[in-house]
Amino acid sequence: LDYQHVQVPFEITLWIMLASLAKIGFHLYNKLPSVVPESCLLIFVGLIMGGIIYGLNDRSPPVMDSDIFFLYLLPPIVLDAGYFMPSRPFFENIGTILLYAVVGTIWNVFGIGFSLYGICQVKAFHLQDVSLLHNLLFGSLIAAVDPVAVLAVFEEIHVNEKLHILVFGESLLNDAVTVVLYKLFRSFCEMPTIKSMDVFAGVGKFFVVGLGGVLVGLSFGFTAAFTTRFTKDIRVIEPLFVFLYSYLSYLTAEMFHLSGIVAIISCAMGMKRYVEANISLKSHTTVKYFMKMWSSVSDTLIFIFLGVSTIGENHEWNWPYICFTVIFCLIWRALGVLVLTFFVNRFHVNTITSKDQFIIAYGGLRGAICFSLVFLLPDFHRKKLFIAATTVVILFTVFIQGMTIRPLVDLLAVKRKRESAPTVGEQIHIRFLDHLLAGIEDISGHWGQYYWKDKLEYFNSKYLQKILLREYDQPKSSIVLLYEKLERKHAMELAQAGQLGHSPAQPSFLCSAFLCSSSDRTVITDQKLEDTLNPAVLDNIQEILARNLYRIRRTGPAYNRHTLPGDTEPAEQAKEILILRHKSL
Amino acid sequence: LDYQHVQVPFEITLWIMLASLAKIGFHLYNKLPSVVPESCLLIFVGLIMGGIIYGLNDRSPPVMDSDIFFLYLLPPIVLDAGYFMPSRPFFENIGTILLYAVVGTIWNVFGIGFSLYGICQVKAFHLQDVSLLHNLLFGSLIAAVDPVAVLAVFEEIHVNEKLHILVFGESLLNDAVTVVLYKLFRSFCEMPTIKSMDVFAGVGKFFVVGLGGVLVGLSFGFTAAFTTRFTKDIRVIEPLFVFLYSYLSYLTAEMFHLSGIVAIISCAMGMKRYVEANISLKSHTTVKYFMKMWSSVSDTLIFIFLGVSTIGENHEWNWPYICFTVIFCLIWRALGVLVLTFFVNRFHVNTITSKDQFIIAYGGLRGAICFSLVFLLPDFHRKKLFIAATTVVILFTVFIQGMTIRPLVDLLAVKRKRESAPTVGEQIHIRFLDHLLAGIEDISGHWGQYYWKDKLEYFNSKYLQKILLREYDQPKSSIVLLYEKLERKHAMELAQAGQLGHSPAQPSFLCSAFLCSSSDRTVITDQKLEDTLNPAVLDNIQEILARNLYRIRRTGPAYNRHTLPGDTEPAEQAKEILILRHKSL
Repeated sequence: LDYQHVQVPFEITLWIMLASLAKIGFHLYNKLPSVVPESCLLIFVGLIMGGIIYGLNDRSPPVMDSDIFFLYLLPPIVLDAGYFMPSRPFFENIGTILLYAVVGTIWNVFGIGFSLYGICQVKAFHLQDVSLLHNLLFGSLIAAVDPVAVLAVFEEIHVNEKLHILVFGESLLNDAVTVVLYKLFRSFCEMPTIKSMDVFAGVGKFFVVGLGGVLVGLSFGFTAAFTTRFTKDIRVIEPLFVFLYSYLSYLTAEMFHLSGIVAIISCAMGMKRYVEANISLKSHTTVKYFMKMWSSVSDTLIFIFLGVSTIGENHEWNWPYICFTVIFCLIWRALGVLVLTFFVNRFHVNTITSKDQFIIAYGGLRGAICFSLVFLLPDFHRKKLFIAATTVVILFTVFIQGMTIRPLVDLLAVKRKRESAPTVGEQIHIRFLDHLLAGIEDISGHWGQYYWKDKLEYFNSKYLQKILLREYDQPKSSIVLLYEKLERKHAMELAQAGQLGHSPAQPSFLCSAFLCSSSDRTVITDQKLEDTLNPAVLDNIQEILARNLYRIRRTGPAYNRHTLPGDTEPAEQAKEILILRHKSL
Repeated sequence: LDYQHVQVPFEITLWIMLASLAKIGFHLYNKLPSVVPESCLLIFVGLIMGGIIYGLNDRSPPVMDSDIFFLYLLPPIVLDAGYFMPSRPFFENIGTILLYAVVGTIWNVFGIGFSLYGICQVKAFHLQDVSLLHNLLFGSLIAAVDPVAVLAVFEEIHVNEKLHILVFGESLLNDAVTVVLYKLFRSFCEMPTIKSMDVFAGVGKFFVVGLGGVLVGLSFGFTAAFTTRFTKDIRVIEPLFVFLYSYLSYLTAEMFHLSGIVAIISCAMGMKRYVEANISLKSHTTVKYFMKMWSSVSDTLIFIFLGVSTIGENHEWNWPYICFTVIFCLIWRALGVLVLTFFVNRFHVNTITSKDQFIIAYGGLRGAICFSLVFLLPDFHRKKLFIAATTVVILFTVFIQGMTIRPLVDLLAVKRKRESAPTVGEQIHIRFLDHLLAGIEDISGHWGQYYWKDKLEYFNSKYLQKILLREYDQPKSSIVLLYEKLERKHAMELAQAGQLGHSPAQPSFLCSAFLCSSSDRTVITDQKLEDTLNPAVLDNIQEILARNLYRIRRTGPAYNRHTLPGDTEPAEQAKEILILRHKSL
């Protein structure tokens, strides 16, 4: 036995296998996932696993490595989120999302940090050694809403598209703010004195980190699109480029201390449209399917590891600090949403209702990002307290909020997502209105979103498409593309329903096939006859024959008192032949 | 800049990117890959890369790590080979393949080993310190034909199916022999004395390593099939199980010192049929596509690394030893093939022609497996000589033999693979004959391959399918499945050709869509009018309309001397309406 040799890949494969099997297990009982979100179940499995490891080894189970989380588990989830991001609602609400993500997160960080510092001043709690800076550092990591947790819960409750994109967009874009504030406070903690210059440099960093991420992402995205122009002869490696370039964008951004999440999202959103046009249909299926598969496995692993890492002796328990952390997280988020929404509603016609505001505030789930960040903290004597507080906040938000949000959505009758996709007619009218509004904005001199969208579209068709698309010489209008897609779908449905018109060649082949297949197997033994000609197979074949050949003649008894043989048959047969001839026309 | 942090994934991604871009590069010139096999081009790229690294750093570039090769690069290629293995020719020729793989490889090992030992006895060559055991050890690693190299070359020359499966099957199954002999001689090298017991144990190990691999593979394969019974509600992770279980089978076999290649091939061949039936169509596309993609990347990386690793100071040059190694490799393989084929032909009606024998002998390419094994040798003073000899043999076989085999195949007019797949009629007749022969064998009491195949099929439908398939209650005969597949293909072709019959709803939508799309964009600026109504788009739309609406009326000049307006029109129109009505019937 040579376990050492294969240990690393073997253990990784086993963990992934465990995660996948757990997922299958939940879905065997349909009832369970409809009551408890999958993320809770997975954390629960992780807790049990951690307990078993702890019980057997008598020492803390391994903690999820922050490097593994940030380098291997997070990117697939964010890539999936970016690639399948509904771009229309996202860009329509980009202002509001940015407000929540930037101002809201800063508000939460400072709110939580300062109020926890206030708690630390109470002598009875024995927390006077936690400095303001440490509290702010803690605030910076605990304030950010987690995209993985939000995605896991919101995918199951089906709220309306705007509400979903507000919470989800915020959770993605606040990464830039979190990165800056976390690194700023961490470096402040290690500095002897803080100059006002450093604070200003921190503010400047916001823009560098955020916009830098966008730039890195877009440049990799366009390179990816450009590369897929040349893959016509080797379709097999097309899907690879989507994954390679987006991963490179994430790593490059991380390397330059920019926001990796923002980079990979820009990359995915930037390349999607061009890559889709360049690669083959099967490659695209593979890309989509594999992305979903990968992100779903990553997501599962993260929650299981979160559970496993919770067990152990990393925690220092202090009731007041931990309870107040949970309370402040809730209060400051609620206040932040209220205040910001007040301003947002003043400038928008389509306002955010108070029900929506409640769900936005309540949907502020924390997850594995906080958890990884708290383990990355430099060692100091209260680190274990921070770890405990973070764990409690995560478990509280995922379990209590995650499990109650669905009943609350039902109770408040929050507007749901419409079940059906918009019809083609609706889509065309929406596009028509877009163009109309762009025209109005242009005439009135108001440079709003429609104006810019139109300019972007113009730039795209004038320059970008020519560089990035393979077959630009024959551009297809989106309506032609839509028509082709509908055609394909229609054809597949027809084929499945067996309604496809046939040329006469196929029925005759089928007939001979049927005759052969039943005759060749009956040669061998009599016992097999029953196996081969079992009713289900025969029914199948008869059904197909009935559809495609002239109707099977069910000959009546040879002699019947009331009808003459071959009485009505010929007329019907002639009619059928007529229909078939017209079909084959 | 924080390169340390992202180094590992960044460099892996960059290497894969380089490999993929190199592949794209070759295919931009269609001429190049048709003359030089891709494997040669890739090694060449590797040599250049290695040269650059060597030139810049002034020290040997990194050598391909044997662990990385055996644990991460080899499995995808073998999995792909096993999953897409044409099972009929494989099992028809399994006896011959096993003879070549087991007896042939042993023959080569001892032949090369002993004759090189003879060379070492010549005083003028200064090689007397290389013992017999070391020569045999070297023979055991240099004798085995490499599946990766064989696949890369034989995929491009399209020889007939039997010849292909003989060479390729041998290269896969000789792994068991190589593993046993290599480990045996290596442990002998480290033992002070060798007892006859050890030699007998070595012979017994053959069966353990080979059959153990098959057992491990099949058990994982069936577990995989069983698992996919339960994935109906989470289609997204279905493809994962195919990869996870087959990788686990490889790792488990390696862990117990069994043949990993044999294990993963049995796993893939065992599960394929059941997994295909259980998973959805899109999952299956993803599995197939991703497997091809992955194996193609692995293959590319292996050849590039092979090139990179060649450059450097790992070599000890000794003309006689290296030249005689190449010569003996060629001679012993040719002799082995001649002798073994003589026996094979005596027992078979369908003999192997002398042309085929030549190609089998000439197609014995060596590749990355030898290369990794030679680096795994325990350190002794002549290791560098062995490395040099192995490198030369690999480069000789891949470059000289790989590049000349295609002209030789043309010159000898070796029977090629038939271009078209067998027709349905042929397939049915083949199946019919199979059953017939099974019946004849049963009656005559001769238990040949048809008899066993029939028994296996019976066991499969009686027990295995019931356990491993999800919807066993409604088994579909393979003819019904084939019919459905043809239907789908037909439907897609029809949709692409635009010949699908439409319900009247769609043309009217299209008409309105066309009107909207052209009207909504003309609102904005006059300059845009030309963009939007460019001839290609219009042609597209008109073509669709022409197909699906009543024929577009090309009104002639309003007044014509020879015809009255609306003379022949109505009659034609009535006919069209009739046809359309019949179509929509």
